[in-house]
Amino acid sequence: MAGTGKIGVIAGRGTLPAHLARTLAERGGEVVLAAMDGYAVENPDGRPLIRFRVEKLGALFKALRAEGVRDLVFAGAVQRPRLDPVQFDFKTMTLAAKFVPALKGGDDALLRTVIQIFETEGFAVRAAHELAPELLPLSGVLTRAQPGDRDRKDAARAARIVSALAAADVGQGAIVAQGVALAVEAAPGTDAMLAWVAGPAGASRPDPSGARGVLFKGPKPGQDRRIDLPAIGPATIAGAAAAGLSGVAIEAGGVMVLDRAEVVAAADAAGLFLWVRPADPGSGSSG
Amino acid sequence: MAGTGKIGVIAGRGTLPAHLARTLAERGGEVVLAAMDGYAVENPDGRPLIRFRVEKLGALFKALRAEGVRDLVFAGAVQRPRLDPVQFDFKTMTLAAKFVPALKGGDDALLRTVIQIFETEGFAVRAAHELAPELLPLSGVLTRAQPGDRDRKDAARAARIVSALAAADVGQGAIVAQGVALAVEAAPGTDAMLAWVAGPAGASRPDPSGARGVLFKGPKPGQDRRIDLPAIGPATIAGAAAAGLSGVAIEAGGVMVLDRAEVVAAADAAGLFLWVRPADPGSGSSG
Repeated sequence: MAGTGKIGVIAGRGTLPAHLARTLAERGGEVVLAAMDGYAVENPDGRPLIRFRVEKLGALFKALRAEGVRDLVFAGAVQRPRLDPVQFDFKTMTLAAKFVPALKGGDDALLRTVIQIFETEGFAVRAAHELAPELLPLSGVLTRAQPGDRDRKDAARAARIVSALAAADVGQGAIVAQGVALAVEAAPGTDAMLAWVAGPAGASRPDPSGARGVLFKGPKPGQDRRIDLPAIGPATIAGAAAAGLSGVAIEAGGVMVLDRAEVVAAADAAGLFLWVRPADPGSGSSG
Repeated sequence: MAGTGKIGVIAGRGTLPAHLARTLAERGGEVVLAAMDGYAVENPDGRPLIRFRVEKLGALFKALRAEGVRDLVFAGAVQRPRLDPVQFDFKTMTLAAKFVPALKGGDDALLRTVIQIFETEGFAVRAAHELAPELLPLSGVLTRAQPGDRDRKDAARAARIVSALAAADVGQGAIVAQGVALAVEAAPGTDAMLAWVAGPAGASRPDPSGARGVLFKGPKPGQDRRIDLPAIGPATIAGAAAAGLSGVAIEAGGVMVLDRAEVVAAADAAGLFLWVRPADPGSGSSG
């Protein structure tokens, strides 16, 4: 592992934090979770869990140091909190001039500010895949099932859609079958999109006996890859199978695969392919 | 009305053909519907209905002429048919060299070819709003309810999303609440997207008591406005109300409003605004 201290996982929504914590622990890291008040955190392995409020950043920094945390990893989306200034502790008060304006800006600007605040406090904000490089698999097909020509075309069209959407700072996924966009990812996220295609949206396939469709996921071009890199896990495969897709394609170097052995086994069991697809030239998302 | 012959409405999916036929008839036009075999056509006013197959274009042209049709309007999406060449009549055979390659191209190219074929046969393919200009309302708010500042921001963000998606030839609508993209329109269409936001996707509003969100619809930049201009009607308002939105914004000059009196009455009854929003400068969709 990089460094000698423990790794703090700042946990947002979803199962990503628990899966990431397990992956880091399997590589020998000691992991401490930290989550904002009000966020349900899955913690099946019973790791130390620090609860915090943005109003009390002094307490958060102290608790992280007391646990011996040096590296920090952000995992899972967090909504902008609604703050109660009356509750600010001294540290939060001194930082307010920095982060309160950023709360009104775009996601990327806010994330840069958050990273900067933690680094000024002496923590190293690391990308999850920097601590566990196997989270970003190399190009290739990881499953027994292989994408066919029609699947490759559907994946290419979905990749173009995700790339076009990046200009509007929306979603990181799309589902295409037979050249038709069945769904485009928005705030509800990938699992919700897959559930929708398992339901009514799936009927938009032009030929019911034609190509079943592909989920493509890729990162937003230019995003800070230390935070919010998209990820897939076992639930993604279960959702893709329920949606009747042929498989899942992810952009090489831009999408994490959590619990990879479990993911590949689930895809093989369901007969789906999992294709780590090289980024399209000029998609601007290889940086 | 333009011309002295009857108006043929080539009917695709949905309620658009029936609404359009009514609007044209209210302006004094005599309307004949024509629909591909296998397409369910709503025909509540009992207008003449010609059924056709692309394999028998000679029969279609003959039937349209027999009805006295001179102007043609396309209404509602039609999927690319799977053709049985054995069934081709003489006219279809002579046209096959023209339209069969176009079937493999993009939507725009195919539509241009279809228009050209009908025009070569002596029909005038007209935009619906050319025959009934009131289908494209001028900029302004048509309802008692007015969009507030937050609604205008949400509409602006949704307009940017639709504009970005146009690069990937997807959808013509998006729903944004509190700056968050709740849904992006794909093949299932506007009504399905609204139903999704009425259901699970609606929970992605960051603040349950904040701005309720706006449906924005706009045309794809550069599309031939004689075919496939987006449209809203009473069902759109019902769907927006069920989704809990504040209102509906459409791009001025780019989206048809069918049954306008009924649409405005429904919006007023539900307390929604209907805002005909000037196109953003540089959105490229004013041509």
